[in-house]
Amino acid sequence: MTPTGRKPDEGERYRAILETAARLICERGYEGTSMQEIAAACRMTKAGLYHHIQNKEQLLFAIMNYGMDVFEEQVLAPVQDVADPVERLRQCMRQNIHLVTSGRSKEVIIILHEHATLTGEAREYIDRRKKRYVRFLEDAFAEANRLGRLRGVVDPTVAAFSFLGMILWVYKWFKPDGRLTEEQIADGMVELLFPSGAAAVSAPAPAGEDAPALRMVPRAASSSGPGGEPQ
Amino acid sequence: MTPTGRKPDEGERYRAILETAARLICERGYEGTSMQEIAAACRMTKAGLYHHIQNKEQLLFAIMNYGMDVFEEQVLAPVQDVADPVERLRQCMRQNIHLVTSGRSKEVIIILHEHATLTGEAREYIDRRKKRYVRFLEDAFAEANRLGRLRGVVDPTVAAFSFLGMILWVYKWFKPDGRLTEEQIADGMVELLFPSGAAAVSAPAPAGEDAPALRMVPRAASSSGPGGEPQ
Repeated sequence: MTPTGRKPDEGERYRAILETAARLICERGYEGTSMQEIAAACRMTKAGLYHHIQNKEQLLFAIMNYGMDVFEEQVLAPVQDVADPVERLRQCMRQNIHLVTSGRSKEVIIILHEHATLTGEAREYIDRRKKRYVRFLEDAFAEANRLGRLRGVVDPTVAAFSFLGMILWVYKWFKPDGRLTEEQIADGMVELLFPSGAAAVSAPAPAGEDAPALRMVPRAASSSGPGGEPQ
Repeated sequence: MTPTGRKPDEGERYRAILETAARLICERGYEGTSMQEIAAACRMTKAGLYHHIQNKEQLLFAIMNYGMDVFEEQVLAPVQDVADPVERLRQCMRQNIHLVTSGRSKEVIIILHEHATLTGEAREYIDRRKKRYVRFLEDAFAEANRLGRLRGVVDPTVAAFSFLGMILWVYKWFKPDGRLTEEQIADGMVELLFPSGAAAVSAPAPAGEDAPALRMVPRAASSSGPGGEPQ
C-alpha cells in the first residue's frame, strides 16, 4: 500500500522481499535460511520468488547493497558536508548509533556476519563500499589531527576502527527496553571520544563556513563544559 | 611433548583437542564443522574423540570456558590489583588487545560468534563469566569517574561497552603483516580513551599503593605530554 493508493510496484515488492529475507537471515544465518523459507515468509511460491531474485547469493548481495544504501542515506549524507571534522565525527557517530538502535540494523548485522559468504566481484564491491566509510572516518580524524582539534594525536586508522568498533558493537548489547536510551548511549560515546570540554573549546570550528546542521548535537553545541583550558 | 619429556597426559590431550576444534570451528562455524572432521584433524577416530568429549555442544562449552580461562589468566589477572582505575583500564586494554592480536583470538571469536548456540545452563554459565568482565570494566570506569580521573563523566556501562567494542573489533581488521603493529594499535586506543595529557597528569595515581606492575604501559608511565592542565 502506498500513500497514493497504487498497488505496490515491482520496486516496492523487491524491497519488501529484501526486508523479509534480511529478517530471516539475520535470525538464522545465511546457511540456516532456505529459499523455500524466504518465499513462505514473503507469502510467495518459490517460483514467484525466483521471478524477483536470481539466486540466494544474489539475494545476499542485494541485501548488503540495500543496507549500504540505507547507511549512506541516513548516516553519511547528512554529515559529510559538516565543515568541522570533530563536529562531523560527532554527528556521524550519533547518526550511526541511531541506525543501529532503531531496528534498521538487520542489514548491518548481515553485512558484518556474512562478510565472508559472498565471493568474487560481489564481495569486492561490498568491500569497496565499506572501505569508503573507513576512508571517510580516517580523513576526518586526520583533518582533526592537523587542526589540533583532538585531545592527542592518534593514528587515523586506529581512530577510525575504534569509532567503528564502539558503534557496531552496540547492536550486541543495546536493549530497547533497557536502562540506557539510544540518546544516552550516543551522548556517552560522543563524550568519550570527543569530549565537549577538550580542544573543541580552545579551537572553535570555523564559524559560518558551510553552516553545519547542528540539529543532532545539542550538548556539544550548547555546553562548553567546565573543562576549558587556558592554552 | 612436554619440557620434561613425559608423554602428554590426559589434560594436555584434552587441551590439544580443544585447540584443534577451536581452530576448525573458528574457520567454518559451529554448524559447519562435524565431529568427524574434528576427530580427523586431531588424528583420532570419532570413537576416540568421544572418549574425551561428551558431545558437540559440550565441546563448544569447553572451548568457550577455555577461552575465558585464557582471557582471565592473560588479561584480568595481571591488572586487577592495579590501584589506579585509569592505569588499570589502560593496562587491561593493552593486555586484551595483545590477546586478540597474538593469534590467541580463536576462542574469543567463537565466544562472540556462537554466543547464541549454547543453550540452558551452559549458556548462562558463559554469560555470567562474560558479565564479570563487563562488571570489572564498569567498576573501574565508575571509580575513575568518582576520582575525577577521566576527562568527562561517562556512564560506566556505555564506557565499558565502548572499551569492549573497540578491542573486540580489532580481530576484524588487524593484519599481522599490515602497516600497524599491535603496539601501535594499543598505543592509539589507549591514547584515544585515556589521553596521557589529560586528567592523569593533574591527578597522579596514588604512588606505591599496591605497587602496580607498569611493565605494559611505558608511554603512559614515561610521558606526561604537552597537555597538562593547571587545574
